[in-house]
Amino acid sequence: MKLHDLSTPALLADVDALEHNLATMAASLPGPRLRPHVKAHKCTALAKMQALAGHKNFTCATICEVEGMAAAGLGDDLLLANEVLDAHRLASVNARVTVAVDSASTIRAAAEAGLREVLIDVNVGLPRCGCALEDAARLADLARSKGLVVRGVMGYEGHVVGLEDRANREKLTAQAMELLLQAHRAAGGDIVSAGGTGTYDINIWATEIQAGSYVLMDTAYAKLGLPFRQGLTVLATVISVSSSHAVGDCGLKALGMDHGNPSIEGGHQVWFVSDEHITFRPASAVKAGDRIRVMPAHIDPTIAYHERIHLVRGEEILETWPIDLRGW
Amino acid sequence: MKLHDLSTPALLADVDALEHNLATMAASLPGPRLRPHVKAHKCTALAKMQALAGHKNFTCATICEVEGMAAAGLGDDLLLANEVLDAHRLASVNARVTVAVDSASTIRAAAEAGLREVLIDVNVGLPRCGCALEDAARLADLARSKGLVVRGVMGYEGHVVGLEDRANREKLTAQAMELLLQAHRAAGGDIVSAGGTGTYDINIWATEIQAGSYVLMDTAYAKLGLPFRQGLTVLATVISVSSSHAVGDCGLKALGMDHGNPSIEGGHQVWFVSDEHITFRPASAVKAGDRIRVMPAHIDPTIAYHERIHLVRGEEILETWPIDLRGW
Repeated sequence: MKLHDLSTPALLADVDALEHNLATMAASLPGPRLRPHVKAHKCTALAKMQALAGHKNFTCATICEVEGMAAAGLGDDLLLANEVLDAHRLASVNARVTVAVDSASTIRAAAEAGLREVLIDVNVGLPRCGCALEDAARLADLARSKGLVVRGVMGYEGHVVGLEDRANREKLTAQAMELLLQAHRAAGGDIVSAGGTGTYDINIWATEIQAGSYVLMDTAYAKLGLPFRQGLTVLATVISVSSSHAVGDCGLKALGMDHGNPSIEGGHQVWFVSDEHITFRPASAVKAGDRIRVMPAHIDPTIAYHERIHLVRGEEILETWPIDLRGW
Repeated sequence: MKLHDLSTPALLADVDALEHNLATMAASLPGPRLRPHVKAHKCTALAKMQALAGHKNFTCATICEVEGMAAAGLGDDLLLANEVLDAHRLASVNARVTVAVDSASTIRAAAEAGLREVLIDVNVGLPRCGCALEDAARLADLARSKGLVVRGVMGYEGHVVGLEDRANREKLTAQAMELLLQAHRAAGGDIVSAGGTGTYDINIWATEIQAGSYVLMDTAYAKLGLPFRQGLTVLATVISVSSSHAVGDCGLKALGMDHGNPSIEGGHQVWFVSDEHITFRPASAVKAGDRIRVMPAHIDPTIAYHERIHLVRGEEILETWPIDLRGW
């Protein structure tokens, strides 16, 4: 099957970029040094490629992702790196599941669900989940008192991973991880889980890195000068051309927009995006029926809109994978 | 079933707001004066309520929406208000389908697919699809020469519908519709299709209005002082609370973000949204496990992320409908 056989919009993964990114990351963070975050791609077929590259332990953001990974036979060691009050939904999952906790409530939910293992989630500077440093020991004790094994700590330096200046990323990652290592000494366990694509080779303190976006990248991460190639595009058809602009059939329902407008290969200048349209000023002549490739600004919420992703090399479609970890 | 039985995030429609909005619109634009746009809700069950309110003719943005509406028995008169080059996909749809055309290419695609009816789409000020005014007659003639019936014209004043100042909306709608009526005189046919929720009672020139968002509204349209109630929320659970902020489990994959941050009922102040989180400063004390209701800034790309929508009155879930028109 060829690209021109596809209806548009269609989500494409460039196989060569994907394989390059998988190999580059596996060389840098082999085996369990990387705990790939499946929230970026929500695709068990792609997770299997990460497992083949040596990473058998995965990070999930939702219970649905944990369930899907377990069902796909990828449940050796799943970390739900998120707080859940409805942990009872995890009780029947056939996998080793470790859940993040940052409060008495989340610890109680984990214990009551019959879960066995937790990480203490620590706020290392991003104002989101995670307990205060000074609460880490108390929460670890509380978890143990409920019969839970505290495998260690996690703390996501999400306020740092996207900073374009590498020196700044290094400085702020060191500060964040100093907090996390203090919490680790207080809470115990073997694991210090942290990091993302933007700090994968900077965060030398974490025992495992939770990167996800590296597999296919996006235009936001492309600014960081990382050794990963941009491999994710949305294929669109030019449906209208006027003297001032042209329009492709790829809109807000095919693109995560929180990081701003996408880009278009070939230097076409994006004006704005509507529900099902992208309006752009062509850099070179286009006509109705031409195909364009739109590069999303943010990979995660883009993929979450699509039912499937096509693996392509040039004009050839090699495989089509379901995005099977969507929903909650 | 009660709200507290739902896993979160979960998409909710307030039944009373929905019924109020349907009745208010049907009183203002009865029967075929409204051609509801299903792109807003992508839900055939909700479209059936619009049909019960008297509107049997619908507007679609994608071929998938046309196919789904036809399969649901709502195919009396479907307008695909969008340009398509792959019109052949519509050939087997069991419905009356009229398609927008704005070029020789889209006319050829419609004719070759065996479609019978078109509208000439005219650019009335929004730089998107639509031919130039001076091309309307030529394209209508071309369509007729290919055996197509030209039912009239359409032209969406999308650059106007969201303007907060009503006098400004009125002035610019009149200007846009002057162009469209000129095109109508040139192209012929009975239909002048235009408008949206923001101009539903301003656009007195169109023979039919394509409003969609009115059914459940969003925070962007709420600023316009329209008589429609905000009925769409995403139910979320508070999963983490610290001294400075709290976090709900509703993120970028549950919310269209192109219009900016959502709001939260109860005056909680939204700081930022991540893939699966909303971080906010509570207006009043919250604790882990509490539920919050997040009001999206843009209804269309929010609904498109969800598999289903729950109809609620107070704490009661009356019905659950699939969002069955997603995808392309």
